[in-house]
Parts: sequence; C-alpha cells; structure tokens
Amino acid sequence: MGEVKVIGSSKSLFCTRVEWALKLKGVAYEYLEEDLLNKSPLLLKYNPVHKKVPVLVHDDKPIAESLAILEYIDETWKNNPLLPQDPYERAMARFWAKFADEKCLMRAFEAFWKEGREKEKAIESALESFAFLEKQIQGRRFFSGDDKIGYLDLAMGWIPHWLNVMEEVGGMKLIDAEKFPILHEWTQNFFEIPLIKECLPPRDALVNYFHFSMSYMRSMGANKQ
Amino acid sequence: MGEVKVIGSSKSLFCTRVEWALKLKGVAYEYLEEDLLNKSPLLLKYNPVHKKVPVLVHDDKPIAESLAILEYIDETWKNNPLLPQDPYERAMARFWAKFADEKCLMRAFEAFWKEGREKEKAIESALESFAFLEKQIQGRRFFSGDDKIGYLDLAMGWIPHWLNVMEEVGGMKLIDAEKFPILHEWTQNFFEIPLIKECLPPRDALVNYFHFSMSYMRSMGANKQ
Repeated sequence: MGEVKVIGSSKSLFCTRVEWALKLKGVAYEYLEEDLLNKSPLLLKYNPVHKKVPVLVHDDKPIAESLAILEYIDETWKNNPLLPQDPYERAMARFWAKFADEKCLMRAFEAFWKEGREKEKAIESALESFAFLEKQIQGRRFFSGDDKIGYLDLAMGWIPHWLNVMEEVGGMKLIDAEKFPILHEWTQNFFEIPLIKECLPPRDALVNYFHFSMSYMRSMGANKQ
Repeated sequence: MGEVKVIGSSKSLFCTRVEWALKLKGVAYEYLEEDLLNKSPLLLKYNPVHKKVPVLVHDDKPIAESLAILEYIDETWKNNPLLPQDPYERAMARFWAKFADEKCLMRAFEAFWKEGREKEKAIESALESFAFLEKQIQGRRFFSGDDKIGYLDLAMGWIPHWLNVMEEVGGMKLIDAEKFPILHEWTQNFFEIPLIKECLPPRDALVNYFHFSMSYMRSMGANKQ
C-alpha cells in the first residue's frame, strides 16, 4: 500500500491521534520527529499552509489536519473501521469530534493558561461543554460503542492524559468521578487499552511542555493587551 | 427516503450550502425559516448544543454543522456525488473546506466589521489566505474539477454573493480580477449555474443584514474592551 510517514511532535495530542489510528489498522509507518521551534524544510514543503504537525505522507502525498487524516486512513485501509457505517452515525461522530475540538479542548486549554476572572469563565465554559459529552456517552463503554474504540474515541483521546497534565499544571480540575462519572469511567476504559498506552508521551515530559506552554501563552496574552 | 426538513435562515450562507446540496441531489425538502432573534422550540430541541442553523432533519433525526450535513447528504443520496471518490482527493476537499471556513471566511468577516489598524491587519491576513485558494483552483474551472461543481464549490459558495456584500458594506475589496484572476473567474462560473442562483437571498436584504451585523459586532467588540 505504499510508504507511510508521520511528521509529528511527541507532545502533540493531534499527532498521537494519527499514530493510534495507524496502529489500530496495523499500518507500518516511519515516524519523523519535528522540532517545532526550528521547523524542517520537509514540514514546510508538505504543509505550507499551516506549517503544523501532524502531516501524514502516503506515497509522497501529504495530508494535514488530524481529523481529515483519520478519515483518510479509514478510507484507505478498510480493516478495523474507525467510523461507523451508518450515515447518521457517521454524521454524529463528525459533529461530536468537531465539538470536542472547538468547545472542550479549546476551552480547557484556556482554563489551563488563563488567570483570575478569565480563568474562572473558561472553566465554567469548559464544564458546560463537557456536560454535553457526559450525556453523549451515556449507556456506552466507548464513544464508538460497547465493544471497541473508534474515530470518536481517538478524537477524545487527549482527555485522559493531556487534560490530566493541563489540570495539574493549571491548578484546576475539570473531569473527575464526581462531576462526570460516565466520562471519568470512559477515561479509565480508554487508558487501559495497551495500544493506546503505547503511544503516550511520558507524563513528566508533558508536564515540562505545559509549563513552557503556559509561560508562552501568558507572555503572548500580555503582549496583546 | 423519508421526510426531509431544513431549519434555516434565509441570510445564512451555511444554510444555503445545505439547500444547494439537496437541490443538486434532487431531494425534496420542507424549508422552515428560523427567527434567530427569537429561536423556536423546534431549533432548541433539534440543536440543543449550538442552537444554530442550519439543521437538517431527516426522518425526525437532526444533523447540525453545515459541512457534516453535506457529507451526510452525500452518503445518503448517492446520485450526483459531491465529494470525489478517491480517498486522497476527499482528504484534500475536507482540508480546503476547513481552511476556507477558518481562515478565509473568518478573516474576511473580521476585515468587514473591524476598524482602523485591526481592519488593515484582518484584510492583509484574509488576502494571504485567499492566495492559497487562488493556487488551489489553478488549472480547473471549478474546485471540484472541470465539468461540475461539488462539495468544495458549495463550501466556497459564499464568496461570489456574501463576500461581495461584505466588501460593499465594509468598504473594502478582497477578491477582484486583478488580485485573484482565477478565483474571480470561478466566482463568475459558479454564479452562472441556475440552481446556484435560485437559492441566493436578495442582495438588498443581505446588505441590510450586514449593516445590522456590523453594528452588532462593533457594539460587542466595544463592550469587550
């Protein structure tokens, strides 16, 4: 099926999504670690628009945007389908993946780095969004059903590991067994899958990364005012 | 194939996308105009998450987010495919549709309502994004190929009509034959298709709408500072 490469960054939850999908499909790939502070000519060649990771390169043809990459992987390697087969279920999966990126992840990230009243507002807003996810997963072991993980679980896969580190470094708690029992149980179930664990960056490296990220965002935010 | 309804607003480019897609497929539907200043119980029931139009309701099952709706329509009614068949081409269509929404439309909208130095910055940024589209459509009559329009043309379909009104009301010019000859030619080709023209809101209604929208955004922006 041709040569497969992933241009990624080991701290990026968007890159890990892609690696999870390839491993679920049993697709062998070469992983190229990108230095985001000194971007390679290869990244600039393959993603001239956003200059961001991940980029999946299949037979020398590049694809960017992690959710578009997941769909490509699912359409190219048909075994172990990631998306459901039913058009309505597929639409729901796409809707919730977009919602989680735009409303849960972005607000959780704001809640992580912001301060004072702005932080409180972001936390409140993130909690409102997570409440929709809690309702969505009700009655199911995984977002994609009872027996196995799929596209939507991979899209939400930042919650158990990355969010947990954001919570620690940002001094806040968004997801716990009391506020969101079902979502919390999902994080446990998801985290237990060996293939999922395999691709996670070490927790201490992620803690360092988010400390750096917080300083960076705060200095950018300060410059804007 | 069951009852099809569109909950929409006649000024919304996102709703027109959905109507175009249904008409291209020859799917009969009931159109329900929503008053966005006084949202109906039906909209709140069918899109409790975002409370926004469009919502496609098929056999009493609701789908929100215009690009997810286009994919649903394409997967449910297989005639006149909107997306290409090849997985790589499909990934490219999804990539560029997301890019156009996030980078072209959002920046053009900022360029429309902002003032002073901020407006200049937004114009500059929008022009940079449109330059990528100009390159993308090179050598083709439509985004989806030479002979017919598809998903990506519908996703870009706000450019000929809505952007033109934003330019007039906002006192700026982003797309013209000199700066972007290929994109400009596409707007002409796209606009000439009778089915496309049929669904467009009257220009004067759109001019009024954008005057209102500008006052609203400026008062919101002023309140934020």
